[in-house]
This record gives sequence, C-alpha cells and structure tokens, in this order.
Amino acid sequence: MWEDIFQAIDGLYDEMVENRRYLHQYPELSFQEEQTAQFIANHYEKLGIPYKTNVGGYGIVATLKGGKPGHTIALRADFDALPIQDEKDVPYKSKVPGVMHACGHDGHTATLLALSKAVQPFQEQLPGTIVFLHQPAEEYAPGGAKPMIEAGALDGVDAVFGTHLWSDTPFGVLHTTKGNFMAGADRFEITIKGKGGHGAIPHHTKDAIVIGSQLVSQLQQIISRRIDPLKTAVVTVGIFEAGQAFNVIADTAKLSGTVRTFDSDVQDQVIAEIEKIAESVCLPYDADFDLNYLKGYPPVVNHKKEAEIILNDCKNVPGILGAEEVEPTMTGEDFAYYLMERPGAFYFTGAQKEGHHYPHHHPMFDFDERAMPLAAKTLIQAYRSYQKQN
Amino acid sequence: MWEDIFQAIDGLYDEMVENRRYLHQYPELSFQEEQTAQFIANHYEKLGIPYKTNVGGYGIVATLKGGKPGHTIALRADFDALPIQDEKDVPYKSKVPGVMHACGHDGHTATLLALSKAVQPFQEQLPGTIVFLHQPAEEYAPGGAKPMIEAGALDGVDAVFGTHLWSDTPFGVLHTTKGNFMAGADRFEITIKGKGGHGAIPHHTKDAIVIGSQLVSQLQQIISRRIDPLKTAVVTVGIFEAGQAFNVIADTAKLSGTVRTFDSDVQDQVIAEIEKIAESVCLPYDADFDLNYLKGYPPVVNHKKEAEIILNDCKNVPGILGAEEVEPTMTGEDFAYYLMERPGAFYFTGAQKEGHHYPHHHPMFDFDERAMPLAAKTLIQAYRSYQKQN
Amino acid sequence: MWEDIFQAIDGLYDEMVENRRYLHQYPELSFQEEQTAQFIANHYEKLGIPYKTNVGGYGIVATLKGGKPGHTIALRADFDALPIQDEKDVPYKSKVPGVMHACGHDGHTATLLALSKAVQPFQEQLPGTIVFLHQPAEEYAPGGAKPMIEAGALDGVDAVFGTHLWSDTPFGVLHTTKGNFMAGADRFEITIKGKGGHGAIPHHTKDAIVIGSQLVSQLQQIISRRIDPLKTAVVTVGIFEAGQAFNVIADTAKLSGTVRTFDSDVQDQVIAEIEKIAESVCLPYDADFDLNYLKGYPPVVNHKKEAEIILNDCKNVPGILGAEEVEPTMTGEDFAYYLMERPGAFYFTGAQKEGHHYPHHHPMFDFDERAMPLAAKTLIQAYRSYQKQN
Amino acid sequence: MWEDIFQAIDGLYDEMVENRRYLHQYPELSFQEEQTAQFIANHYEKLGIPYKTNVGGYGIVATLKGGKPGHTIALRADFDALPIQDEKDVPYKSKVPGVMHACGHDGHTATLLALSKAVQPFQEQLPGTIVFLHQPAEEYAPGGAKPMIEAGALDGVDAVFGTHLWSDTPFGVLHTTKGNFMAGADRFEITIKGKGGHGAIPHHTKDAIVIGSQLVSQLQQIISRRIDPLKTAVVTVGIFEAGQAFNVIADTAKLSGTVRTFDSDVQDQVIAEIEKIAESVCLPYDADFDLNYLKGYPPVVNHKKEAEIILNDCKNVPGILGAEEVEPTMTGEDFAYYLMERPGAFYFTGAQKEGHHYPHHHPMFDFDERAMPLAAKTLIQAYRSYQKQN
Repeated sequence: MWEDIFQAIDGLYDEMVENRRYLHQYPELSFQEEQTAQFIANHYEKLGIPYKTNVGGYGIVATLKGGKPGHTIALRADFDALPIQDEKDVPYKSKVPGVMHACGHDGHTATLLALSKAVQPFQEQLPGTIVFLHQPAEEYAPGGAKPMIEAGALDGVDAVFGTHLWSDTPFGVLHTTKGNFMAGADRFEITIKGKGGHGAIPHHTKDAIVIGSQLVSQLQQIISRRIDPLKTAVVTVGIFEAGQAFNVIADTAKLSGTVRTFDSDVQDQVIAEIEKIAESVCLPYDADFDLNYLKGYPPVVNHKKEAEIILNDCKNVPGILGAEEVEPTMTGEDFAYYLMERPGAFYFTGAQKEGHHYPHHHPMFDFDERAMPLAAKTLIQAYRSYQKQN
Repeated sequence: MWEDIFQAIDGLYDEMVENRRYLHQYPELSFQEEQTAQFIANHYEKLGIPYKTNVGGYGIVATLKGGKPGHTIALRADFDALPIQDEKDVPYKSKVPGVMHACGHDGHTATLLALSKAVQPFQEQLPGTIVFLHQPAEEYAPGGAKPMIEAGALDGVDAVFGTHLWSDTPFGVLHTTKGNFMAGADRFEITIKGKGGHGAIPHHTKDAIVIGSQLVSQLQQIISRRIDPLKTAVVTVGIFEAGQAFNVIADTAKLSGTVRTFDSDVQDQVIAEIEKIAESVCLPYDADFDLNYLKGYPPVVNHKKEAEIILNDCKNVPGILGAEEVEPTMTGEDFAYYLMERPGAFYFTGAQKEGHHYPHHHPMFDFDERAMPLAAKTLIQAYRSYQKQN
Repeated sequence: MWEDIFQAIDGLYDEMVENRRYLHQYPELSFQEEQTAQFIANHYEKLGIPYKTNVGGYGIVATLKGGKPGHTIALRADFDALPIQDEKDVPYKSKVPGVMHACGHDGHTATLLALSKAVQPFQEQLPGTIVFLHQPAEEYAPGGAKPMIEAGALDGVDAVFGTHLWSDTPFGVLHTTKGNFMAGADRFEITIKGKGGHGAIPHHTKDAIVIGSQLVSQLQQIISRRIDPLKTAVVTVGIFEAGQAFNVIADTAKLSGTVRTFDSDVQDQVIAEIEKIAESVCLPYDADFDLNYLKGYPPVVNHKKEAEIILNDCKNVPGILGAEEVEPTMTGEDFAYYLMERPGAFYFTGAQKEGHHYPHHHPMFDFDERAMPLAAKTLIQAYRSYQKQN
Repeated sequence: MWEDIFQAIDGLYDEMVENRRYLHQYPELSFQEEQTAQFIANHYEKLGIPYKTNVGGYGIVATLKGGKPGHTIALRADFDALPIQDEKDVPYKSKVPGVMHACGHDGHTATLLALSKAVQPFQEQLPGTIVFLHQPAEEYAPGGAKPMIEAGALDGVDAVFGTHLWSDTPFGVLHTTKGNFMAGADRFEITIKGKGGHGAIPHHTKDAIVIGSQLVSQLQQIISRRIDPLKTAVVTVGIFEAGQAFNVIADTAKLSGTVRTFDSDVQDQVIAEIEKIAESVCLPYDADFDLNYLKGYPPVVNHKKEAEIILNDCKNVPGILGAEEVEPTMTGEDFAYYLMERPGAFYFTGAQKEGHHYPHHHPMFDFDERAMPLAAKTLIQAYRSYQKQN
C-alpha cells in the first residue's frame, strides 16, 4: 500500500503545482487568511473527508480515519504569507500588492492537500488516523499553533510531524536534529529615562546615551559570564535611538533587541539578567527604565525517536537523496508548541532551486516545486514508521 | 563731558526702545540681515557719521573721530536673529514666522545706535576715536566676526569692548571674568561602519551598536584621564542612532556631539583623543569609521587689564548695581575672534526681567529694556577708562 | 574466553587494591615519576610480557601479541601525581609531603596492570594485539602523551581506548559522548605597559589599571559577539595585578587567564580576537602590551564508532550499571593527542565513593576502588568489540 | 622698625643654617618628634618668650605680645620628617637611618625660630601679637594641625600665615593663589566580594575581576558626567589586585585609590558617586562590596585679601624676585585646617637649588638655604600688612 501511496503522490504533482501557484498569486497575511482557509475547506469538502473550520482562528482540521487500528498522528502545514512585495518575474507572481508567500507556506499547503487526496483511496487498509492540520499565522507571534491547540486540534492525537520546504537545504535532502532544532526567539524593548540638558552642563543631567551605552556593553556579560558555556543564547540590541541635537544631552534612549535560546531555564535567566543590568546601569544616575520583554515562540525541540524516524526511515523514501543531522538553527517556528504537547519531529525538506539563491523572506524567494511530492512522501513515511514502532 | 554723555544716553531711552522693538518685529536670520543692515546704515547716514557697509558680509563700521588725541577703540553690537517662532504675547512680537530675536541682539543694536547719537555732540572734546562695529551672523558658525576682521574692521583699532544683555544676570549687575569667559564650542559626527546581519548570527557581523556603545564609554576617559584636571573640557554625545529592526544587527551607528574647551591645546588634544578612540573601538571588529570634526568659535578670553576696567571702573557707572567676577560659562560667542586680535573684554549686562524667567534661545525670551542705557553707559565708560590708562 | 577474562579480573581485585594503595603512598610529580615507572616495568618483567621503558620520558609500552589475527589496540593509563598535600585520614595516605594522587592515576595504573595479568593466560586465543600504554605527566602541560607518540608509542596501533575513574560519575556508570568530550585548555598572559605617575596627575600617565579594566570588559565581547553562538568557548581572566600605592598611577598591569574551546577554528579565532582587543585598548593611550599565549591540550574528541562501543557494548559488561551520553566537560586531558592520531574513545568510569564528595584535585579526594575492575573489564570489552566490528 | 627686622633676619642667617642642618641630621617621624619639640622649646626658653608645649601632641605655641595695639596673627612652621633614607652626600646628611627631612620642614623650623629672635628686640614698638605655631606631623594624616587647633592654638588669633620652602619654585619667587591653592586628598579602598570557581565554569561564579574592571571603567564617568566641568576633581585607582591562579575565577578584587578635590561639595558628591557605582556594578551579579573611604586633608583655600598681601606686598620685600598667582596644585597640606578657622594664606617661597633638581619626598631632596631669610621676611611682612589693613 505505501508504495502505491508514493505513486499516487507523484501522480498528483501537476495538481500540487497548480494549487501552490494559485495560492502564491493570492497570498494573505497572518490572521487574515480567510480565502486561503476557504480554499482548503473546499478541498476536503470535495473529497468528503470530515473537517472542522475556524479551529483557533482560520485553522482547519481534517480527519481521515483508517480502516485498521493504529495511532492518531497529525501532519501540519501552515498557510499564511508575509508583508513583502513579490519581485519575481514569473507567471504565478503575487497579485496582492505588498503581500507574498516568501516562505513557502503555499507549498506546504499544496503538499498536504495532495497527500490527503493520495491517501484517501487507501483509507480501508490504513492503520490509525491521519489528522491534517492546516495552520494559519505562523509568521507573526503569538502565532496560530497555540490557539489551534487550545481549540482542541491535538485532542486524541498521539504524535505530530511537520516539514518546511527549505531553500537553504540541497534539493532532495532532509535536515533535522534530535533535541534542539530551532531556537526560541524573544523581543525586548528598554527605555532609559534619564534627564536631558545642555550639552555643556552634564552634571545637571542624567545622560541617557551614556547609560544606554553602558547597558549595551554590560549585556555582553550575560553570554560571556552568566550562561552555561555549553548552552546556547544570543542577546542582540538591534536598535539604539537617542537624542535630537548634537549639543543637547538626551533624556531618553530607546533600545530594542532579540534574545534567542533553546531552553526555558536559559531564557528565564537571560530575562532576569537583562532586568538586573538595566537596573544596574540606571542606579548611579538615579535614572529610570522601562523593560518590555515579549516572549516569542519557544524553541522547536524534536523528540528523539521521532527525529530518528526522519533520519533513519524517511531517508529511504524514493527520491530522497539523504537525511542529515545538522546543527540547530537560531531561527524560530511555532511548530514548537505542538512538540511541547506531543511526541513528534519537525524537519526541513531540501527545496533549493537550481541557480536561484534567495533566502526565505526575500522578495525574490522561490523554491523547487519538485520538493513538494518529496515532502508529502516523507510525511506519510513518518506516519507509517510511527505506526510500526509504537 | 562723560557725565553729560551718560545723561544724553538716558535721554535717548525712548528711541532705544522704539528701535529695539522695531527690529524685534522684523528679525532676520544670520547671513540674511539685509534690511537690518540698511536700518543701521540709515542711522549713521542721518547723523552724518562716516560708515562703511558690506564689511565682510552685511557688516557696518562707523567711525567717530574725536577732537582730542587718543586711542582707537571698537565697540561691537551683533544684529542677527534665530530660527525660532516667537511665542510672546506682546505688541512688538516678531512679524516674521519662525524667526525671532530670541537672544537680544536687537537690544545690542539699539544700544550702540543710541550711544553713537549720544556721543556725537561731544565729538570735539572726545579723546581718541570710537569705531562702532555692527556685526551680523553671530548665531551661526563660522559667524560674522571673522570675515569682518578679514575685511579690515579692526584696522587701526587699539582695543575692543562688547557686551551681551543677559537675562541670567540680575538687572543692573555686570558679570565678566579675567581670562576665560566663554567656552569654545565644537561639533563632531562619527559614523561607525560595521556590518549588519541576522540578530541571531552575531559572529557574521560587526555590530555597530556594540562598537558605538564602546565608543561612548571610552570617550568618558578623555575627560577623566587624558586632560589636565585643572583644565576644563566637556565631551558630550548628543545623538546616537543605529538600527531599524529589533532582530537585525545594525551595520551603521551615527553619533554626533559637542566639545567645549577654553584652550586650543586642550581642544587639539580632545580632537586627537576622539580620533584615537574611534580607531580603537573599530579595531577588534575590523570596522571603519568617519569622523567629521567641525571647530566652532574659539573661547572668549578676556584680556586682564580690560576686564579689570569692567570690574573696577564700569561698576561705578550711574545705575550699575555691581560688577562681579564670575565662573566662566560653557556657552560660546564669536567675539572671541576680536580678542584674539586686540586687547579687550566682553561682559554681560544684567537684563533679567522681573517675573520673567526664560533663558536665551527660548520662544518666550525677553529682557528688561532698561538695561540698554546701562549697556551704552558701561561701553563708553570702558572707552573712557582705556583712554586714561593707556 | 571473554567471560573468563572478566572473572580473572575480578580475581585480581585484592592485588589491584594493594598496587593502587602502594602507589598512593609513593606519589611522584609529573615528569619525575622514576620510581613509579620502575614499579610498572617490574610488573611486566615478572609476567614476561615484552615492554619498552623510557618511551618519550618515563613512558612504558608493553605489548601482548595474541595468537589469533586481529587489530592492534592500545589501552592507556596515566601515572603521575599532583603537588597537593594529602589530607585524608587513611592507612594508605601519601607518604610524600606535598605530593598526592589526587586525581586517581594510581587507580588507572593498578587497573591496567591487573588487566595485563588477567589477559596473559588467554594470549593464544586472543585476536589481535594489546598495547599497554603507561603514560607519565598527564597533569602538567605539555604532558606525556605527545612525546610518547613522537617516540613511536602508536606505531602499528589501529585504535586507542582510555578511561578515567571519575568521582563525579555515579559508581558503576559509564559517561562519554560522541565527538567533543573534554575541552581544550589554554593559558594566556597579558602585560599592559602604560606609564605610571602621580595619582593626581593622570594626564601625564597611561593608566594601566584603566587600560586593563577596559581589556577585561572588551574580552567579554569575544564570546557574546564574535564566536558562533552554537559553538562553545570560555575566556576567563583569573589574575589582575597592578599598582603598589593607592595614590600612584600604575605603569603596568598583569593579567592572566584561560581559554577553553572544543574546536581549533574557534581557538584560533579567540587567540586572534584577544590580540586585537589588547591592541585596541592600548591604542588610545599609545601604551604597549605583551601577549603570551600558551596552547594547552587540544580537546578530547571521541571518534563516533568507538564512542558507540562504550555506549552500546560496554554498558553490558557485568557490573556496569549503565552508559550515558553526557554533555561535554570543560576540563582537559592529553588523551586528546592519541585521538588526533588514531580512532578511539575516552570515557569516565563512575567511581563515586559513597558519602564522600570531594572533587578531583581536592586534598580529601578518594574514589571507590571497586570501580577498578569495572574499568579493566570495560577496556577489554572495548578491545573485544573493536576486533569484532573491524 | 620693619626694615630693621629685615636686617636682623639677615644677620641671623648663619644661625638659621646651623639650626636647619642640626635638625636635618636628627629628623623625627610624624607623631614622634619629641627631641625636635624639645629643641624648639629650648629656643623660646632661652629667649624668654612665653610658650606652651604639648599643644595637641608635640605642638609648641610661643607668643610675643607687642607693645602697641593690634591684631594677633599666627605664623606657622611644621617640623616632622619622612620615612625616607637620605641619599645626599653632604656633611649635614641625616644620621637617622630611614628617616629624612625630605620636604624642608627643618628649614621651616629654622626660619620661624630666627624670626622670633629677630623680632623680639622690637617687642615694645610692635603692633599686635605674634603667635609662633610650631606644628608636628604634617606628613601623615590626620596630621598635627587639627589637634593643635582643638587644643586652642588659634584662640585669640585673628589671622594665620604660613609658607613652604618649595624646590619647584624658582629661588626668590613667591607662588600662591587666591582661593584654591592645594587640593584635598582622600583615600579609598573597595573590596568586591564575588564568588570564585573554576575558570571554565563562569556561570557558577560571580567574577570579581569582571566586576572590578567594570567599576574602574564606570568611575571615569564621575569626572566626565557627574562633576561640574568647571570644578576640579580626580579619581584614581592605584591598586587592582585579584586572583591567584590563571584558571580560577577570582572571588575577591581589592582596589584602592585616591580622590582629589578643592571643594567639599564636590568631595561629598564624589564619595556618593563612588558608592553608587560600586553598588551598581555588584548588582547584576548579586555580589557584595566594602567601601572604606578615608577623608584626608581638606583643600588649602587661601582667603582673598590675605593672598593679595602675599601677591602685592610680600613681593616688595628685599630679596624677593617676584610674586605670581599660579594654578593650584593637586598636592595637599594640613595648613588647610587653619584656613577653615581663620583668614589667612599659605604660599610657596621659591627655594630651588641651582643645578639640583630633585622633587620633594625624593631621597636626594635639598633646597637653597638662602631662601630661609626670604621666608622669614615675607612672613613678618604679611604680619605687617595685615596690621595695617585691618
């Protein structure tokens, strides 16, 4: 049966491309994906696969119950786009000004839709149940995964798998890792509230630029002295804005930055250290500060056995050229939330387009569409292996 | 005779106020004072006192040669206004949108015009020669004093005196000091040219915010360790601008600031130290920088004997309530250039308006007009004492 | 046969303890282990196993050629002691003042001697060749491993295994990891050469304490900004010494510290960054510096397949309670050099003594002697598995 | 009469030299000047001038009441030596090993003794009363001036003058200044109490070297940002000591330094800022600190009219080559305490020895003895002028 499903997927290639290109032309921003959700719903409606809409927003959950006993496994595809102007010169270029599928979520959706169609004929022989998770709003924290889970999307689910078509990974290759795979990404904003004054009379002021500079320098010590050297963390100040006139001491300095971690203990420690350092640099000046810390997605931490399924089993899927355990990446994903609730794994399906080297989120971004059937086949292989092993 | 001149000045009070208020309503920005210059020229034309126009710009130099032998002494008044919107509610409020005599130069001009009129009748008895220096463009470096000097305004002049109606000095009191009176004020701009990148991948970047913060911290050491503690200097960074996105490492940081000194050796040392520190903080990152250092006016350094004339003799002028040697001020004035060429002194004539506490350059700035005759009398007293002593 | 060897090892337990306690009472410092080497040589002499002495110093290499074909595998034990005063209250306490086996190398030696004796009776049936590597001077860089290798200790050797009796690992448990297991540890010394002077006259000096403090602060940025966040490195300044008098500016500051890395690229980068930062902090003062960087042992990087032998096969050895892949440790070992030349693995044999929690290098250090036969059995198991697999 | 006194002083030159050289050979350390005090007492005993001994320690106060009405004026000479080995090769070299009059206090004493002898014959004609203040322990805080004042040395005194034979001032020239003349000099000690640990495990420690370095860097901001740029202050850390081993993180850092100010407000502010900065740098690490701040002598602040007596009147004393108002010096003197209680002035009498350029406190220090009669004459001239003016 599984080989037949693989063949069925290959047979749906043209439909996958068509669907992907349609979605590519009509991208919708996070939390606004009404038409895309409708497009997905129509697909399941036509197939007669039971589905729920408006699951935690525009989320759609379709369920294909196999004829044989087995586990319930969710396969996830996200479907939102980005506020980027499409600059590609292709027939399927975005028709929505300033909005673009610059991350490949159109491909994820086309992949999962084709997979559901390819599997359906084998429903009777299928062990267990497939849950097709179509998730909106991955690009914009707090994201779509969390509300879908809160709305019950994982109820009865035993494990969850997901993949990202990845233009930095060679075509046909799978990349993942056991444990930490993608970092947690937070945002912080610090406003130093000093006291301005004449540039020649510093002693009547609380120089916000001097205090803010001290803050930046001191933040470096979090990584160098406070965090376990065997753990990974990054603290970056991306914006420093202070002062309007060269000869006036600034009363306020606004800094904002990002924190990346793989571990909630480390994350908590970094937050505490940032606060103490802000307090510290203000103290000699009796200055004040506001710290606004926004936790983003937690890290994507793959479960060991499920990651091994990708590394050991999925690499043998027809068309896959290899599966490699790689260094984690510092970027983030709200797939993290699923893995906090259920066993599972997330992985990259190599989709690098020949002679086309634009990164994700770039106005020229595109991917090799032939990676879509590979993604579909590895997802169903993960389903198959999990059934066998558990 | 001198007492008669004092009385004549008092007799011209109404004319002084009228002229000042007229100029107040029609202020002109630095280097654009065409009408004001015409107004001044008309005054000397009417009196029949010889004058030159367009001296180093809109400068006017009028010369009253006394009948008795003596020294040639220049008395200076500046006449430009500022790009500030007048917010006072008075009948003589500025009629020019966005331009205002917010520093009292209108009063200086009215004072000097009245003085020339008061003295003229005594020309025959007068020892020496009075040069009335009407200078444009004090507010905006490189200023009007330098080109006037270059155009010969001080040719044949033995000494020079000037005063500023000063709203921070109590009415009727004179403030000055021997030696350093007003600081030199420079401007600098530093651009740190690092290399931007993903906020989670610092090792591929040269973080301009970290480098810039280091720069600000290090600049503090110029004052604390490099400059003679008995000398005075201030280094202030007034603007720090870097980064557009919280999660992107900034490639560029732009800092600008001011340096205040009283001593060209110290000034030169500060410039050299800033450059070395900028080079230093860029070095570990192989980053680059641009340093643009703009020397402003040099410090106003009063000559000892001429300052003593103000402190000892002018304090006895009728109406003057005292003369005090005060701490220097960190603000600047292009009167500095005259004092680099000739003996002389600059002083503040107290013009604080009762119940009205707005500083110079404030949209509500005003001064007590009764200080104008005091300024005129002290200027002519300085002339008188200098003739006597030399 | 292998089970018989395990039993033979157990039968030699008393002799192991006796040998270990003898060595414990007569410890010798690194590079001075003449008597210990003699003790080891006597053992092989008595057994009639061929051995070489003075291999790269006091090193001893004994060779037991099996009767069956197979690979040549070296098993290593180090035998030097530390300059620490033994403070334990036991009958086998060190008899040498100020010298102590505070790291367990006495146990390593007793273990390997017993193993050779246990295996010898089975020489005919034994596949391959065992090389017993007795290494001096592990505690003191540049160490004894490197000269032994240079003297040919690994000639003809196919793989190498070694273990450390480890008091931080629970008794009977094995700890190791694939890849980075123990860090590389370097030493550096920086002398800032400023210019001293009167504490009240900073501008005539180059304040070495201010420069040195700047250096310490800037070094933090190596870890926070320059090194890949996914890589591990530590830079610590352990000593800062400057100045003799509170009111005199110091001319010299001496700093020394350590660098830990797992990766020679990272190590090289850290060295380069330290040098650039030292240059940078001296620059604004025209001060000089000396940097003396001493590379210590490289990191211990286990080979994957050999580490898997420990984790998968040795854990089944009788008496072993488990084998765990653990986080690397930041401490160092010159076993690193063997692994740069040959496949192999290094691992900890848990030797925590009940109710006795003193770390390695502590004057009260001791270990559970029952771990010695476990170490011997796992070493010979590693030998066995390697023969089988290759 | 005054001219006669000047002549009498000149006539006592040999005695002055003899006394000075005797004292030079038998120097006594601060607070141990028993023999020197006896020597001084003998002098007044012989002359029959009333005197008190043991005034606030070994202090001696002799009083010469003139026959004419007038003010009571104290003239002060200090008489302690320093813990320095005399390395001069002269017949009057110190006979006490390790103790030396390396600052000229022997000359001050000889000067004042001669002056008393020169004036006594004119007692009947003398207006007012001369108080000869012989003060011990100037070299070692808390000094001898304060206890002498507390013991009543200034009771009934209207003004006080003192001079220092100064080898940095050209022979025969007087140096002083109105207002701030010599700085206040304080001492501080800061102990950072962090938490030590393994050099490779920073996150379990509180790195005292990093905290201490931060402290040094931050202290620079006191001068650059917190103190009025027109005021003078110096903060120097002269000693930084931390750590014993290059690979162990230091638990403690000891810093000590000096603060120089001319103004108790500035002094108080600096103390407060140091404390806040110490608190600040410890805060992010939850580290502790001890701050021990020892106020030294306050600044020597001359009273204006009395300083003008030196500058205007004493410069006309026979033999004096000039009197100059100079920049203040950052060094200290406990003459400060007298000037906090009474009007007066302290000044340097130029005593530079031709071809001999060793500073005060140097083992080769010496001065031109011909400056002693000049010092005596200027002191009595100051007395004379004060009587006349008040």
